[in-house]
Order: sequence, then structure tokens, then C-alpha cells
Amino acid sequence: MKENNETSQSNIDEVKAERHKARQQKVKESVDAKIAKAQKEQGVLLVLTGNGKGKSTSGFGTVARSVGHGKKAAVVQFIKGNWECGERTLLEGAGVEFHVMGTGFTWESQDKEKDTQAAKRAWEAAEILLNDSSIDLVMLDELTYMVSYHYLEVERVLDALKNRPSMQHVIITGRACHRSIIELADTVSEVQPIKHAFEAGVKAQPGFDY
Amino acid sequence: MKENNETSQSNIDEVKAERHKARQQKVKESVDAKIAKAQKEQGVLLVLTGNGKGKSTSGFGTVARSVGHGKKAAVVQFIKGNWECGERTLLEGAGVEFHVMGTGFTWESQDKEKDTQAAKRAWEAAEILLNDSSIDLVMLDELTYMVSYHYLEVERVLDALKNRPSMQHVIITGRACHRSIIELADTVSEVQPIKHAFEAGVKAQPGFDY
Repeated sequence: MKENNETSQSNIDEVKAERHKARQQKVKESVDAKIAKAQKEQGVLLVLTGNGKGKSTSGFGTVARSVGHGKKAAVVQFIKGNWECGERTLLEGAGVEFHVMGTGFTWESQDKEKDTQAAKRAWEAAEILLNDSSIDLVMLDELTYMVSYHYLEVERVLDALKNRPSMQHVIITGRACHRSIIELADTVSEVQPIKHAFEAGVKAQPGFDY
Repeated sequence: MKENNETSQSNIDEVKAERHKARQQKVKESVDAKIAKAQKEQGVLLVLTGNGKGKSTSGFGTVARSVGHGKKAAVVQFIKGNWECGERTLLEGAGVEFHVMGTGFTWESQDKEKDTQAAKRAWEAAEILLNDSSIDLVMLDELTYMVSYHYLEVERVLDALKNRPSMQHVIITGRACHRSIIELADTVSEVQPIKHAFEAGVKAQPGFDY
């Protein structure tokens, strides 16, 4: 009786293993077919938007990836925090060009004229990068706010993005990305906050939050 | 008449600038109040889940940030691609410890028993890190699949997370994170795909997609 039970258990396990194998085979076939179909090579415009944590760090992770492959990357930061961000130290050390907009947090600023001028100067640095085919990847960190605060005209941003070198990748991060930039983008991810330690009273900590 | 128009336009601009200033002042006050309230310092458990692009790169970006601040970070990768990822080159060079699970893409595998053994070995490496207070940040890349494929018991994962050093930060990435890990987490972001270049036939490219 016990032996029978054991045999039938082992049969069940075998059937399960076969099912798992068949299911995984199907997944593999579907992934392979998609990979076979995706043969275009081009510069990708990636937008990371939404209110959740992880947009800029994701962009910086891709910059790290790019540098790790020997590619040339550059970053324009449109909002500079009051602190030095840790990734800058590492990435600048690895040869990544950084341009940082010369004002504090935009939400700490009450001078629209000064902020607009600073945004325009940072955008001019971005335009030079977006016109330089030796740069493989341009990250425009927190650019979305410059458009939503009307510091930059969206048409000017779109023009530079459309006319950039065809193999150049661009990453734009920030909340509430303008609809017309989303339309132009090839890949768009929206990072949604499910919960955040900060709301539970946890302090922003160096090496993790900045 | 023209002069009058100019005067009234300049009045409107002044009113607009004042309004902008008042609005920004309010935003600043609200942000400052939240910062003042958030005084707890602790290790944060961050989960990056959802189906969109940018979860692992966000984790790696935080690892880069951590290293840039002179912190000690380690990564366990639970799904190893067929390609070498660029961020590993850079981060390992900067002293980040990497453990890579010894199988290919899980969705290319049809051997559940072999995968389970590989997952368990990788998890043992994770447990050692989660028990070592000299490690400031542990990234468990693509861990979620190990739980959803039943390669690892969620209780074992929760135990190690709960009993880790109190100041240690942990990042877990991957789709469909188990509910009980989300409950335990301090910060959870869900990355949702709005669109993806791959679906439009664009090839995965080195230095950007891996």
C-alpha cells in the first residue's frame, strides 16, 4: 500500500515535471520568436516617468551599463539637489561627462526668471550632446519638470530629440512627462509608488536615497 | 494706447511671477515639513517590481550610488542572461561583490530540479550577505521569479530579510513580487510598461539593454 502511494507520488512528480518542461518550452519559443523578429538597430528614446522611486537611479544604472561596454555617455542634470549624489562620483571617474544646472531644487526656488535662464543654459549643453554622434548615450535627468514648469518650450526639446544622431540613445527622467515626448519615445516606463519609507518617517540616507 | 497695453502686460507678468513665487513657497514648505518629520535611520527594503523596463537598472544605479559614497555593496543575480551585462564590469571594478546563479535564463530552462538546486545555492550566498553587517547594500536581482517558480520558499526569504542587520539596505527586483515580500518592504515601486521599442521590432542593444 505504501509502495503504491510512493509510486503514484512519483508518477505525479513526473507528470508535474513534464508539464513544467512543456510550459517553459512554450515560453522559450515565444521569447525566441520575438527576438528573431526584433532586428532593427537604432538609437532608442527611453522615458522613465511616474511618481515612484527609481527613475533617475534606473537612468544612472543604464549609464553604468553603457560605460561598462566601453560606450561614451553624458548626463545633464536639470535639478541639482543640495547634496552630491554618489553615482556622479563613480560615473565621472569612469569618464562620464556631467552637466549640472546651476540652481538648487526647483521646488525650493521662487524665482521663475532665474530658473528659466538656468534651464535654458543646461538645455544648450544638452543640445550640443544631442548633436554629437560620438556620444552613445545622453541622459537628461529630471528634464520633464523644465517642460511642465514652462522653463523650456516642448517644441525645442522635440526638435533636438528628432534630429539627433540615429544611433544615439537618450534617457529622459522625471514625473509627468509631456504627452508629445511620450508619443515620440520608443520605450516608456511609468514608475508607480506603492509605498515609500519616507512617508513612514524614514530619513533619506546617503548611499541609498542620494 | 500702446503704452497702456505694455503697462498692463507688465502688470500681468508681475502678478504671474508673484503667483509662481507663492505656489513654489507652498511646495517648499510642504517638502520641508515632510523632511523634518522623517528622522528615522534604518536599513530600507526596496522592491522594484512590475512588467516595465528599468527595474534591474534602477537597482544597479543605487549600487553605483552606494559605491560612490564609499559604502560596501554586493549583488546576487538570480537569472543570468546569455550575455555579460555592462554594469557588472564597472561595478565589480569598483569593488562590488557579484554572485551569479549558475544557469541560463530560467525561461530557457526546462529542468526544474536543476534550476531549484541552482536557486538554492544562489540563495545561500544571499543569506551569508544578509547576515553580514559590513555589507551596507545587498541587491537581490530577479529574486521574485525564484519565489513565483517555487524554487525558493517565501518563508525562508522572509526570515533572512527580517533578521538582517538593522542598517542594511536590500533591493529586490523582478516581476510579480510575492505579496508577503511587498508587505514587509519599506518602499515599493511598480514599473509599468507604457510602450517598449522591442515590441516595435528594435533589437536589444549592448550598452543600453544589457
